[in-house]
Amino acid sequence: MRRRIYDADHESFRDSVREFLDRQVRPRGEEFIENRAFPRDLWIEAGKQGFLGLEVPEEYGGSAAGDYRYNAVLGEELSKVTAALSSCFGIHGDIVAPYLVDLCTEEQKRRWLPGFCTGELLTAIGMTEPSGGSDLAALRTTAVRDGDDWILNGSKTFITNGYSADLVVVAARTSPEKKARGITLFAVETGMPGFTRGRKLDKVGQTESDTAELFFDDVRVPQANVLGEVDQGFIHMMERLPQERLGAAVSNIAHAAQILEETIDYAKERKAFGQPIGAFQHNKFLLAELVTKIEVSRAYVDQCVLAHTDGELTAVDAAKAKWWSAQVQNDVLDSCVQLYGGYGFMNEYRVARAWRDARVTKIWAGSNEIMKELIGRDLGL
Amino acid sequence: MRRRIYDADHESFRDSVREFLDRQVRPRGEEFIENRAFPRDLWIEAGKQGFLGLEVPEEYGGSAAGDYRYNAVLGEELSKVTAALSSCFGIHGDIVAPYLVDLCTEEQKRRWLPGFCTGELLTAIGMTEPSGGSDLAALRTTAVRDGDDWILNGSKTFITNGYSADLVVVAARTSPEKKARGITLFAVETGMPGFTRGRKLDKVGQTESDTAELFFDDVRVPQANVLGEVDQGFIHMMERLPQERLGAAVSNIAHAAQILEETIDYAKERKAFGQPIGAFQHNKFLLAELVTKIEVSRAYVDQCVLAHTDGELTAVDAAKAKWWSAQVQNDVLDSCVQLYGGYGFMNEYRVARAWRDARVTKIWAGSNEIMKELIGRDLGL
Amino acid sequence: MRRRIYDADHESFRDSVREFLDRQVRPRGEEFIENRAFPRDLWIEAGKQGFLGLEVPEEYGGSAAGDYRYNAVLGEELSKVTAALSSCFGIHGDIVAPYLVDLCTEEQKRRWLPGFCTGELLTAIGMTEPSGGSDLAALRTTAVRDGDDWILNGSKTFITNGYSADLVVVAARTSPEKKARGITLFAVETGMPGFTRGRKLDKVGQTESDTAELFFDDVRVPQANVLGEVDQGFIHMMERLPQERLGAAVSNIAHAAQILEETIDYAKERKAFGQPIGAFQHNKFLLAELVTKIEVSRAYVDQCVLAHTDGELTAVDAAKAKWWSAQVQNDVLDSCVQLYGGYGFMNEYRVARAWRDARVTKIWAGSNEIMKELIGRDLGL
Amino acid sequence: MRRRIYDADHESFRDSVREFLDRQVRPRGEEFIENRAFPRDLWIEAGKQGFLGLEVPEEYGGSAAGDYRYNAVLGEELSKVTAALSSCFGIHGDIVAPYLVDLCTEEQKRRWLPGFCTGELLTAIGMTEPSGGSDLAALRTTAVRDGDDWILNGSKTFITNGYSADLVVVAARTSPEKKARGITLFAVETGMPGFTRGRKLDKVGQTESDTAELFFDDVRVPQANVLGEVDQGFIHMMERLPQERLGAAVSNIAHAAQILEETIDYAKERKAFGQPIGAFQHNKFLLAELVTKIEVSRAYVDQCVLAHTDGELTAVDAAKAKWWSAQVQNDVLDSCVQLYGGYGFMNEYRVARAWRDARVTKIWAGSNEIMKELIGRDLGL
Repeated sequence: MRRRIYDADHESFRDSVREFLDRQVRPRGEEFIENRAFPRDLWIEAGKQGFLGLEVPEEYGGSAAGDYRYNAVLGEELSKVTAALSSCFGIHGDIVAPYLVDLCTEEQKRRWLPGFCTGELLTAIGMTEPSGGSDLAALRTTAVRDGDDWILNGSKTFITNGYSADLVVVAARTSPEKKARGITLFAVETGMPGFTRGRKLDKVGQTESDTAELFFDDVRVPQANVLGEVDQGFIHMMERLPQERLGAAVSNIAHAAQILEETIDYAKERKAFGQPIGAFQHNKFLLAELVTKIEVSRAYVDQCVLAHTDGELTAVDAAKAKWWSAQVQNDVLDSCVQLYGGYGFMNEYRVARAWRDARVTKIWAGSNEIMKELIGRDLGL
Repeated sequence: MRRRIYDADHESFRDSVREFLDRQVRPRGEEFIENRAFPRDLWIEAGKQGFLGLEVPEEYGGSAAGDYRYNAVLGEELSKVTAALSSCFGIHGDIVAPYLVDLCTEEQKRRWLPGFCTGELLTAIGMTEPSGGSDLAALRTTAVRDGDDWILNGSKTFITNGYSADLVVVAARTSPEKKARGITLFAVETGMPGFTRGRKLDKVGQTESDTAELFFDDVRVPQANVLGEVDQGFIHMMERLPQERLGAAVSNIAHAAQILEETIDYAKERKAFGQPIGAFQHNKFLLAELVTKIEVSRAYVDQCVLAHTDGELTAVDAAKAKWWSAQVQNDVLDSCVQLYGGYGFMNEYRVARAWRDARVTKIWAGSNEIMKELIGRDLGL
Repeated sequence: MRRRIYDADHESFRDSVREFLDRQVRPRGEEFIENRAFPRDLWIEAGKQGFLGLEVPEEYGGSAAGDYRYNAVLGEELSKVTAALSSCFGIHGDIVAPYLVDLCTEEQKRRWLPGFCTGELLTAIGMTEPSGGSDLAALRTTAVRDGDDWILNGSKTFITNGYSADLVVVAARTSPEKKARGITLFAVETGMPGFTRGRKLDKVGQTESDTAELFFDDVRVPQANVLGEVDQGFIHMMERLPQERLGAAVSNIAHAAQILEETIDYAKERKAFGQPIGAFQHNKFLLAELVTKIEVSRAYVDQCVLAHTDGELTAVDAAKAKWWSAQVQNDVLDSCVQLYGGYGFMNEYRVARAWRDARVTKIWAGSNEIMKELIGRDLGL
Repeated sequence: MRRRIYDADHESFRDSVREFLDRQVRPRGEEFIENRAFPRDLWIEAGKQGFLGLEVPEEYGGSAAGDYRYNAVLGEELSKVTAALSSCFGIHGDIVAPYLVDLCTEEQKRRWLPGFCTGELLTAIGMTEPSGGSDLAALRTTAVRDGDDWILNGSKTFITNGYSADLVVVAARTSPEKKARGITLFAVETGMPGFTRGRKLDKVGQTESDTAELFFDDVRVPQANVLGEVDQGFIHMMERLPQERLGAAVSNIAHAAQILEETIDYAKERKAFGQPIGAFQHNKFLLAELVTKIEVSRAYVDQCVLAHTDGELTAVDAAKAKWWSAQVQNDVLDSCVQLYGGYGFMNEYRVARAWRDARVTKIWAGSNEIMKELIGRDLGL
């Protein structure tokens, strides 16, 4: 069925993304895996194409798309090539961007946004802590006022782009007695004394994304690096949840849809017992189910994209999109692996990596369980 | 999330349907169950409201809505009260109507459509046979030319409205050697000698819908009762599949959504172990999952409704909507029963009946397995 | 695979049960459904065969099997014919019997057990209340001491055999301040003033079992009808849970296994698209899965039967058997219905009734959710 | 519930295996992963303990356990430490052993079995080919008679122990016109000219097991290396299927059970939102379900072990155990990963590796789909 949310401009943008991927990304896949990171030159190249500053006003070097559907198109296309690329670019351009654009002072914007758009200033966001998982109320990283500065102590983990980011948006407790209402956001920059990083984490999947633990040991952060209002960090974060969750959902479905498409092709070519394996009724029905599942889910995500473009998407509806798409993605990919047989267990096959890459989407950025808790509360339960 | 497919006119129509249901249907639920049929006076009343002739041009007494979304609204609202009502009205106004409107000669239209719209001429459609299930190529009912007439022999089963229909669209084999391409449609009318019916079938659910076996023993059907082209019955049927399947999908989701809503209310009120049962995390998560499932599925069905309104819906996409919605409906209702505990097993509770009513949707009008077969073929498998 | 838990004596007993079923039950199925009860003469006949007193010592008229495997064989064979028969006989001979045999005084034994074994004294057990479901701590039925008697007030619901039972074991609160530790069991007998019953409940399935609501309005119960220790009712009940849950599990699996066997036969005979429907790979794989599921589950239930025969089965392991078997039974039967196509929705087909009958097993005698709560606690969670 | 299949001798053997694992394996886990193989010295050490020759008569250096339950105990304990170890040892001691012991001539036994038992002669089995997967009838490797020798050509893939094996049992087509009945088994040994191996395959999981592609380019295999009867290879393989499948099932369940146990401990210790994560009802119920699933499945596998010990296990019942256990293992481990949250995606956590390790069990040694096909055929479908 024809998707109704994109028009010709979006599709033309999609073409430019594809061209970039064909030229800059596909030929270098092995390199990215070996380095366990996307190199800076790739970011710079993406910046040249205007892919990093979709949310940033033109005066600061951005492309000011002013239409979330461009973000969605970008997320879809990146996911089709590799999930990790979508994650890394998404953290920067989809998740951190709104913090900077909405919360920065004029001075901060001039300081950071141009580099943000060119790829010279790579960003990450630090919420999750080793002890706390998704529980923001349990945040242990603290920032204590000291004259015009803040002294930051604590650590963050599972930080995508964390190893190479030049600027990390860090949530820290500034008014411990106020619980969630006493959190402030800080822009911590590379080179600040006391700010160190652990090794790149050895993950089950998304090997190409650099993920790291961050440590803050009496890091002196000037007031000029406070993002938004002091003690309003929780609200700042809550307001950006719909986009964060929706971005995940868009990528989840596009990723699974792409691998499913490749699997269908494989099932037509690969023969066993004298016929294409896709001709066996069990496989045929299975693929029919998977295709249905993807298309049904995409209809919902598309509906969310449209709502978000209109500024109507709630955090709860985005939560529905996020957990559902993550579940669908994982279910679909597990079946795809099975259809590849022994080859599905070999890392040189895209399906094998995709299966490993996808596992984290049910966990990160609020696990499926957290999403269900939020939806349940919204039902008044 | 706001549904985007209906405008104010559709919602105003929805109000009129609801008013009809409150006045004519809700107070008589027990009576319909006992009679195992909706009485003719209800049909007449619906005819007065213009609900039966949505697809029929005004000159033949119809309301000529000219927009499938009115059918969808009607199907949704009927389903919310009782699935069987949606089935019976759907067969008449959603499924048979296009056959009559598209295939009838002018003479036939004048003969049948006015009564069709008032409810005086109740219709059914006879495809399924005792031996063949969903396999049209195995059709055993035959019609043999005899002068200007056709002599019809065979039987049909599981015919909704079959017991009380005044006119049944019957598929019969007219050119046995041509297999599927040798089927013709006939309008068989009450009173034709040799046309008899079995008792109302004792079904697991949808007790209020009259379902019967039909027998044709040398029924003489005049040429004037042939619908469409001789030997083109298969094509006539294929062309109407998108609407038939979509109508099922619309009802499936609306039915389950309604019972889910009632179940959420129940889960807030019913207490166990000192708190509302919906407050238990297991139930809370479960309800969050069910709500997500319904909303995701509805997004797809809505997308199909829009496509069909624009004449773009394919039979295969409609097949996806049909099997998926039937599965979701049954899964959701099974969970709802469980949440009602022992009361969910008592027929006086709406949830118990809904659970029984829903079971057939995975089977009829092309089982879920048939749908998957078709989708698989469409994938080239 | 050969089942290893039964020896020749058990199999010989199985033959006698089968003979009884062929002679007394199968020919009268319709009658039982219409009456919504098994008639007393059937109970009497079963009593003559020694089926009711398997747990009762010979001196009181029982057959004193002294080996739970005979109960299991009986439960299996009854379930194969109709689930409701297994439920009704099970309540009497499997569930109430241990209360009477273990807790009765010598005088009570002489008074009740002979009739219990002949079928002249039909029994039921009343724990569940309209307001409380599975929550014994919330029991509202009370018994207040009045001289040598107790005055009973309250109501019970969903009581199998409730409409026709001559003696009901009723749990009532005798020391409200002691919560669960203040419950006493009473033998309430037909004819006691103030003891009345509602109509037979109209259930989704198990139509042949009489299920009723019981009302106690100032019922004077003599001390001679107290079962076991005053205020020890909760412990008396807890001690009998393993057998109650195991009996359910045995019946659940036998019931589903039987219908599955019949479905496999059907799938070999019924043809569609030119071949037996069981030859379609989807159906073939499905049936392979169902058979596996049944055999795997039966291995566990058999292991429980052996443990219980040795007096080793814990309430928690029995809980695992109960919820798992109920889930398997329902899953298997839903698939069986699907394989029957439209006929699976017709009450005249055994599979249709079996599907409806099975729905309650996930709910009654402690719902699947309650079982999981207990298992979770046992894990120390 | 007490497992009933093992006696004190088996448990004492279990202790010796555990002692070996604690001493020789656990401390070296990282090394094995880095080398992507278990080193020969580990095999030699295992040989000293008598673990490699359980099936081999004492006169050839074996321990001649004469009771499959020792194999099962070994498989269970190895799996608990790492799935790959169980796979590699299992191929050698559980799968290849019966071929050598049953099919070898006296001369062959003297030549190979002593080294087999000490670990100096490491073995593998080569059935699967790049083109054919599980389809033995499509075998392309050929062996053509040349005087007293056979000339072997073809390739095998996914061969566990393939990189380091000294002797590989290779299935090759010797009478092409006889299809499955024209296959012969050959013992191909390291050093035979024309026998080469590809690199160690880069797998999704079971990193420590060396898996390789084998190439046969005009390999001259003397008649003295033919195993069993010429052209009887298919039957030789069929006869050994029950043990091969059962061994997989035993390991699958033990592996998942072990990780589940560790996960339950983790769920008691790890806190979120102020309480242990296992105390959240969703997690509590989930863990209750997983424990039930494991125990139910183990009951079946145990029943199969007993049947096999008695020589009664059929290939079809073993197929049920294999596919079911693989599915359960994968489902359980996926849930365990989820309970670990972000840590479940980190390779340093056992649960993460276990999840990856397990994925292949639904695929290898006859995929779950092949197993269902066989079970379905056995049902007469």
